[in-house]
Amino acid sequence: MSTFDSLWGSILDVGREPTSGGYRRFAWSTADLTLREWFTGDAQQRGMSVEEDRNGNLWAWWLPPGHTGDPRDAFVTGSHLDSVPDGGPFDGPLGIITAFAAIDILQRTGVTPQRPVAVAAFSDEEGARFGVACVGSQLSSGALTAERALGLRDADGTSLAEAMTAAGRDPGHVGADPTLTQRVGVYVELHVEQGRALDLVDKPLAVASAIWPHGRWQFSFCGEANHAGATRLVDRRDPMLTFATSVHDARTRATAHQAVATFGKVRVTPNGANAIPSQVLAWLDARAADEETLRALVEDITADATRNAGSDRTSVQIEAESISPAVHFPGEPRDRIQRILTPRFGELPVLPTAAGHDAGVLAAVLPTAMLFVRNPTGVSHSPDEYAEISDCRLGADALAAVMADWIGG
Amino acid sequence: MSTFDSLWGSILDVGREPTSGGYRRFAWSTADLTLREWFTGDAQQRGMSVEEDRNGNLWAWWLPPGHTGDPRDAFVTGSHLDSVPDGGPFDGPLGIITAFAAIDILQRTGVTPQRPVAVAAFSDEEGARFGVACVGSQLSSGALTAERALGLRDADGTSLAEAMTAAGRDPGHVGADPTLTQRVGVYVELHVEQGRALDLVDKPLAVASAIWPHGRWQFSFCGEANHAGATRLVDRRDPMLTFATSVHDARTRATAHQAVATFGKVRVTPNGANAIPSQVLAWLDARAADEETLRALVEDITADATRNAGSDRTSVQIEAESISPAVHFPGEPRDRIQRILTPRFGELPVLPTAAGHDAGVLAAVLPTAMLFVRNPTGVSHSPDEYAEISDCRLGADALAAVMADWIGG
Repeated sequence: MSTFDSLWGSILDVGREPTSGGYRRFAWSTADLTLREWFTGDAQQRGMSVEEDRNGNLWAWWLPPGHTGDPRDAFVTGSHLDSVPDGGPFDGPLGIITAFAAIDILQRTGVTPQRPVAVAAFSDEEGARFGVACVGSQLSSGALTAERALGLRDADGTSLAEAMTAAGRDPGHVGADPTLTQRVGVYVELHVEQGRALDLVDKPLAVASAIWPHGRWQFSFCGEANHAGATRLVDRRDPMLTFATSVHDARTRATAHQAVATFGKVRVTPNGANAIPSQVLAWLDARAADEETLRALVEDITADATRNAGSDRTSVQIEAESISPAVHFPGEPRDRIQRILTPRFGELPVLPTAAGHDAGVLAAVLPTAMLFVRNPTGVSHSPDEYAEISDCRLGADALAAVMADWIGG
Repeated sequence: MSTFDSLWGSILDVGREPTSGGYRRFAWSTADLTLREWFTGDAQQRGMSVEEDRNGNLWAWWLPPGHTGDPRDAFVTGSHLDSVPDGGPFDGPLGIITAFAAIDILQRTGVTPQRPVAVAAFSDEEGARFGVACVGSQLSSGALTAERALGLRDADGTSLAEAMTAAGRDPGHVGADPTLTQRVGVYVELHVEQGRALDLVDKPLAVASAIWPHGRWQFSFCGEANHAGATRLVDRRDPMLTFATSVHDARTRATAHQAVATFGKVRVTPNGANAIPSQVLAWLDARAADEETLRALVEDITADATRNAGSDRTSVQIEAESISPAVHFPGEPRDRIQRILTPRFGELPVLPTAAGHDAGVLAAVLPTAMLFVRNPTGVSHSPDEYAEISDCRLGADALAAVMADWIGG
């Protein structure tokens, strides 16, 4: 069994829901803490020292022989360990497992790094629990303030500050990391593809060109709670109707803008079978090829919802929870990766993605790049997310080759 | 302060949510258990002995002097203590508080009952926790089997059997009550009106003519979970779209049938902001003036949903959770109540209602009647539910007059 295979098997049961078969590895949950311990233990087995930074991001260091002092200009790879609700096993962990597997490949062949190497596990990439994605990388790079992050609350009303405290962390330390750009020379994140582009061209690996601008908006549709039996239709102010109209408007507008828009998360109050709701909270996820299109798309959906609320005698308030600008991965780490890998894999496809990633957040302050591993069905954020293990092993091999080129030895 | 006022004030804080101001008094919850203790204590203060039957319904007995053996042919009044999520203070408790207040009125004037009197608090009328309404009265009257009831599960997966066990009850005893029809001669339930009919004719009280047939149907819309950013619109199988269409279809069909139909409760899986849902579970509450219309209404909504699922490449399965037939309250207890009350209140309006009640369930096996107290806004199943306390006091006076007529002394 390859080290990739044994690494892969070692966390398959953590945070898996028996009913759906999907993963619920939310930030600072028991499953997340179990994965953090697994990360630390497996890094230590490889002679790597592990630190957790002020924002809960984990760093496992493989340092040049005789290295002293703070690491500088490191080659960093990794991804995240948390998941969406009922997510698949690849989104996140694949980037960390292939990183460890790449180090195993180099260590087996006697490579000693000439510059520091780190495997990073960024905290709360999915934002499944507190509503904002890439919290760890956004905090460290200064894109998210400590004040805003610590006040985020989950569905049970627990704040991020409270969740970190409960996990034994000190939220008083949370904030921008001034050492980040000194320590990290380049960040290369390997990730399962979230789409079928590689399958359609029959290639196992790609490099990323860009990340579509994207964001989340909370729509609060409000009406008047009342008895579902005894209230005449004409007397109702039912926010479920306004929400339902907006679901279709968002789809129509997304089609027109050649973009995507999704209402995937809903919270109804009081959510009683025999009560007209007082409120339907719904989250819009919208993404487009460029920022102008995204802005126009969300403006259209907002105008539709406001007009619908007027017709239904309800109201709607819309609040941006997070907006991520377009990321264009720079030519430099990408072209070097392409040069390293072309002899073995042929020229890699260069793909844009509509999914957000820590590499996209860090691209604002660091040279970053991404590798994608083929996803034959394109399904992601689902228990059915899938990749061939043979493709994943190729991903580890590619990452090892890239790492070897960067770190010498 | 009248005894009504002090009774009313004594439970206003139990199970009240600070944010919404509404009540969350779900069956076998802490709030429910607190109200059961309150019921027992207040009954005992009036010299009444309290028993809880095999199905969790409470009975407080005021017996004729020297009465021995099982009570028979009793005059019973009461209602329920549980609430919908974020319900108001009147729906349920008003019928129990006016019952105790009526007994106070009779005891103060030296009445001694010539036949047994009971105040009943039926368990889990709203069905807010386990999805089926009137569980206590349906079990006792044989309309619901013990097997079906005990297997009902709440949103956390707790079964009714487990909830009763946790509350110290023995679910092994649950089932039809063969003594019910012998013990109860007549059941008169006082309830806040859920509509504005009394306000429109400026009357404080009414008697019920009928309860519309009504029911709850669970619609399970299923599609394919996938990434909200990376999945092309044309590749999606998004059950939220099918649900949204069905919300509007239900409204359109209800209008056409001069009925009501509501989707007020929704549960989305995985409910992640960046995931297309795999499933939207939604509960339809539908009610109509007669059973033929209700059947046609639900058939139309079902056909619409099935057709929509076909267009969206999703699926839908529909399951009836509960269907309550039309109840026509019999002429006999109603006409006698009308004769008793007309001298003081004038002739009472005779109103149908679209809301279900334990009195409707028990009407299948017992003589039952209902009194309604004016609701100036018509709002119910909402923190804004309201009635004038002066009207509630008149309700207690009316119930005392009805009780006095039935029990002699």
